[in-house]
Amino acid sequence: MFAPVYFDCNATTPVDSAVVEAMLPWLSQRYGNPSSRHEYGRAARAAVDRAREQVAAAVGAHPSEVVFTSGGSEANNLFIRGLGHLRGQIGISAVEHPSVREPARFAGRLGGWREIAVDGEGRIDREDFGRLLQQRPTALSIMLANNETGVIQDIAVLAEQAKPTQARFHSDAVQALGKMPIDFRALNGAGVHALSLSAHKVGGPKGAGALVVDKRLELEPLIAGGGQERGLRSGTENVPAIVGFGLACELAAVDLAPTALRLASLRDELERGLIGLGAVVFGQGAKRLANTCFFALPHIDGETLVGKLDRAGFAVASGSACSSAHPGPSHVLLAMGVDAQLAQAAVRVSLGRQTSSAEVGDFLNVLGQTIFQLKRLAALAG
Amino acid sequence: MFAPVYFDCNATTPVDSAVVEAMLPWLSQRYGNPSSRHEYGRAARAAVDRAREQVAAAVGAHPSEVVFTSGGSEANNLFIRGLGHLRGQIGISAVEHPSVREPARFAGRLGGWREIAVDGEGRIDREDFGRLLQQRPTALSIMLANNETGVIQDIAVLAEQAKPTQARFHSDAVQALGKMPIDFRALNGAGVHALSLSAHKVGGPKGAGALVVDKRLELEPLIAGGGQERGLRSGTENVPAIVGFGLACELAAVDLAPTALRLASLRDELERGLIGLGAVVFGQGAKRLANTCFFALPHIDGETLVGKLDRAGFAVASGSACSSAHPGPSHVLLAMGVDAQLAQAAVRVSLGRQTSSAEVGDFLNVLGQTIFQLKRLAALAG
Repeated sequence: MFAPVYFDCNATTPVDSAVVEAMLPWLSQRYGNPSSRHEYGRAARAAVDRAREQVAAAVGAHPSEVVFTSGGSEANNLFIRGLGHLRGQIGISAVEHPSVREPARFAGRLGGWREIAVDGEGRIDREDFGRLLQQRPTALSIMLANNETGVIQDIAVLAEQAKPTQARFHSDAVQALGKMPIDFRALNGAGVHALSLSAHKVGGPKGAGALVVDKRLELEPLIAGGGQERGLRSGTENVPAIVGFGLACELAAVDLAPTALRLASLRDELERGLIGLGAVVFGQGAKRLANTCFFALPHIDGETLVGKLDRAGFAVASGSACSSAHPGPSHVLLAMGVDAQLAQAAVRVSLGRQTSSAEVGDFLNVLGQTIFQLKRLAALAG
Repeated sequence: MFAPVYFDCNATTPVDSAVVEAMLPWLSQRYGNPSSRHEYGRAARAAVDRAREQVAAAVGAHPSEVVFTSGGSEANNLFIRGLGHLRGQIGISAVEHPSVREPARFAGRLGGWREIAVDGEGRIDREDFGRLLQQRPTALSIMLANNETGVIQDIAVLAEQAKPTQARFHSDAVQALGKMPIDFRALNGAGVHALSLSAHKVGGPKGAGALVVDKRLELEPLIAGGGQERGLRSGTENVPAIVGFGLACELAAVDLAPTALRLASLRDELERGLIGLGAVVFGQGAKRLANTCFFALPHIDGETLVGKLDRAGFAVASGSACSSAHPGPSHVLLAMGVDAQLAQAAVRVSLGRQTSSAEVGDFLNVLGQTIFQLKRLAALAG
């Protein structure tokens, strides 16, 4: 297989080889259903319990607060639809992932929903947030770090501000996991009730995620049935994926700080080069994830550029890779006040622990050549 | 690892080694997100499309009718909660899996729900079904084959009978897949709108399932977001599990008839032995799956027997293994009119394609010895 350099780690990450190794027994000889009482079942149950401890440890939570799901989208839906019985207003930031926006819009048919504005760097507009709080929403969902821009929200401060309203506070931490420290105990103290996580964004497999949730929160299950996961998520546990998720969390935690430092330095190197090529970098003034660079080269269509770069050996994303089903400019950039034409030029590079400095240098060279070719074509066409 | 003989294939099946092989590339080098436009993403998309064709072919459906989910429980919930907007009455058989019963009870808060009685062999009571139809339910869910007894319902006939009511007809085909022929085209013609499937009951991995659904049915998604699976199931596709599901369906279809014949003969051998030991076999008078034997030895507690057999090297289930979280007698047996004390003695043996005649013989010997020991203990205690 032709293997381009992979710069799309916010869409999904390579699975760590140790993670695949750890999963294999659970795909072959150790295939039991954790609900079974016999040897096969007990072994599978113990593996799920061990993974629950690993995931909890990675985010400073208690194992009993981890509810395994099939992924981040399900975790987001579980929180928002799980509070549907409250029939109150839901407030979400204007830059949330579609798996928060869509269920909020759906649940909002009963009690209404409202977006919270962000500033030009993608940070929550504190005044607008204050106005929303006066309307006494029953639920709030504000992501820890944005999948497109990497911009980090100060969730603890926002949750403290929301505390007097008693709104249930959720944060989509899918992109934050493994890229910045997360301390659910501290966040919970500040007033955060739940966090969504996903395995495949952190070197784990697709098919596992979690809602880390304060047990005092009364949630209704999204998938009801056999009563697995404390009744909050029925269905046979995806044992191999959960085992992989646990180990991926553990591995990511080991060298989180040095990896983030190294990636930030590569990202800065990348952005210096991009700016030299005439790019605008989004959210650059905000605190961001170390691995994410969302930029636009004015007058060069993002989709076209992604296609050219793919053929030239670099896998990057245009707009949000998770929702390539929805073309059109990124709602995140529009919420940040970026004009639609510039937003149409947006390209995301998201680095991973496997990224080297040489790859970043090569990328800048290839990008420079690609821009030159596209401009020459445009001049010929003009 | 101590490896008892595995007689619990209705709880979960060993994963075929060819299936694991087929999954591996998608867990390692080919890790793309199918929504990504670059090489990695396109390869993953193609793999999901291929699996969709394999699953569709196994049940006589068109690939566009296959909506991948995380498993059978999610598929059941998707159908029932996806029709929540109709706010009508839901009718389900009295022997459904909890992942149909629980969402029906939940959705029934809006429009009501009702169970359809079964006869002593576990077959739908046609008169009670007729009475329900007069109440004009908006949705019906009747399983193709029962997970505990293996009893098969004549879904095509029931759907034809329900047609004039225009009720949306769903069938949980999780246990039927790979064990009996399924023809969605024919069933759809008879009036069946949707079928639930699960990979891990048919030699595939945990973490994948599908709702095979008539596209004219207006369903709301359970997990909303990026718009994957025609908007009916958002979230990054679990590519390795979906690839494994596709191949498992293909492999099961190859020798479905001879495997069913062979297993029926083993099952009959088993049941002759059981009856010789004084067992009652449930649903024996009905058409059943070839692999399933649900029996009780009067006055011997099922849980106790399962524990003894586990230590003696045989992994079997008491009641429904999928919901061991819920102790107490099986609702399936109670619906069949079995008395609670006998139901408490129920044990399920579910064979798989790996089962040999020698294993069945050994099991009967071990069971005979175990019964003898238990009776001696009881006599001593008495």
